[in-house]
Amino acid sequence: MNRLCVHTITTKPWSLERALQEYKERGISGVSVWQNAVQELGLKKASTLLAGSGLDVVSYVRGGFFPAAESAERQKAIEHNKQMLDEAAAIGAPLLVLVCGADPVSGLSKSRDQIRAGLEAILPHAEDLGVGLAIEPLHPMYADTRSAINTLAQANDMAEYFDHEKIGVAVDVYHLWWDDQLQDQIVRCSQGGNLLAFHICDWKYPTEDMLNDRGLMGEGCIPIKEISDWVDAAGFEGYREVEIFSNKYWSMDQGEFLDLIVDAYNKIYK
Amino acid sequence: MNRLCVHTITTKPWSLERALQEYKERGISGVSVWQNAVQELGLKKASTLLAGSGLDVVSYVRGGFFPAAESAERQKAIEHNKQMLDEAAAIGAPLLVLVCGADPVSGLSKSRDQIRAGLEAILPHAEDLGVGLAIEPLHPMYADTRSAINTLAQANDMAEYFDHEKIGVAVDVYHLWWDDQLQDQIVRCSQGGNLLAFHICDWKYPTEDMLNDRGLMGEGCIPIKEISDWVDAAGFEGYREVEIFSNKYWSMDQGEFLDLIVDAYNKIYK
Repeated sequence: MNRLCVHTITTKPWSLERALQEYKERGISGVSVWQNAVQELGLKKASTLLAGSGLDVVSYVRGGFFPAAESAERQKAIEHNKQMLDEAAAIGAPLLVLVCGADPVSGLSKSRDQIRAGLEAILPHAEDLGVGLAIEPLHPMYADTRSAINTLAQANDMAEYFDHEKIGVAVDVYHLWWDDQLQDQIVRCSQGGNLLAFHICDWKYPTEDMLNDRGLMGEGCIPIKEISDWVDAAGFEGYREVEIFSNKYWSMDQGEFLDLIVDAYNKIYK
Repeated sequence: MNRLCVHTITTKPWSLERALQEYKERGISGVSVWQNAVQELGLKKASTLLAGSGLDVVSYVRGGFFPAAESAERQKAIEHNKQMLDEAAAIGAPLLVLVCGADPVSGLSKSRDQIRAGLEAILPHAEDLGVGLAIEPLHPMYADTRSAINTLAQANDMAEYFDHEKIGVAVDVYHLWWDDQLQDQIVRCSQGGNLLAFHICDWKYPTEDMLNDRGLMGEGCIPIKEISDWVDAAGFEGYREVEIFSNKYWSMDQGEFLDLIVDAYNKIYK
């Protein structure tokens, strides 16, 4: 349980205050905070609340979305990411998770160039604040508009291009489980000092919604324990972050849902 | 237009007879036949109709689905594929397209072993009949139950394992457009003599249904012309097969839809 972290989006219907209280009661050790949870409360109150919660703030979610057809839009994205970094620093999050973005008009290769340029532009600010940037490769089904970085190999390429202690990678089993290079790329990621975060949930079959039908660990086909073992063997000692977007689970009692999460977690990591 | 082929599933509401007539009227040269179109009519009548249609029968769709947790199920799949090969031969199709399958319980690696075993079991029958087997890698979003072969690299691995003139690969832009190794793998596929078929459609953004929301060429973000150029440069001279599953298009007048297909095709390949 000392490595269990939950993303506030997982229990979206709850306020930040309620979420922190419920997580703490169940012995959950870490929380990753989504911007919407902070905005509802205001940055100051949210920071105070988090500081007194007894939970580790694991990451702030999410920056990125760098590519755009127009350069003015790209500049706006850069400013937005700098603000996200400020907010991350304010709430004491050591890491900003990046959904890097993709522009379907520019195409994937140009989108990756724009991601690189965006990272270059915000890195000095991240450095000043001491906040890390975690590139999260997204499943290829999100390659149209959400991310032009769709494999761990591509995320490693990007992180290694910068070779900077404040840029690394977030590994999410939902996005990467299908990739037969995953184990090798986890090793590579770790050897480069780039393995910054590890997210878990499951892939339901059938999946009924491309965004909001993620499964509870154990109800799908992702070999979560196997991938976790690769991550551990690579020397990662950080949190296992539960990040579930699910219309189904959001519509049920969130306390019962959180109990299911804790049970599922303990079943895998017994 | 002499390289334009349409899959019968693309105009699903039409009978085989109507489809062939409408395709022919518009100067379409080839047809790939789905099993449902044959079953509605019976194999004999369908064969006669196709023989007199003036259209090339490009492929029969679709065999595969080899993996299963139970060996009895796997044996059933093998028998089913042999029957599909018989039907392909009966309608004069030189190729059976394979959606290889995946068993979420066995996992991806074991599923690939089961695919290999399935191919081994049906290859002698394919050889006897002179019908080729085209392994179609499917998008990673179908890795749960539809295919454990999700990249062209994996399909090439499988084809090269057999190194047999009756086993090759079908390249579908919908499944593979996101992959930054695609161009290299098309070259590899062709050099191995394994590039047997080329399917086109588009990826709409947003995609509203994981199965049946494919786009008409030009309305999405797939660089169809660029990928086509790679395929042509690799020496492929076969058909460009339009395979669109779409609740939206199936609900419109199919004659108008087919006009849109011909226009979109001519716009790309002018």
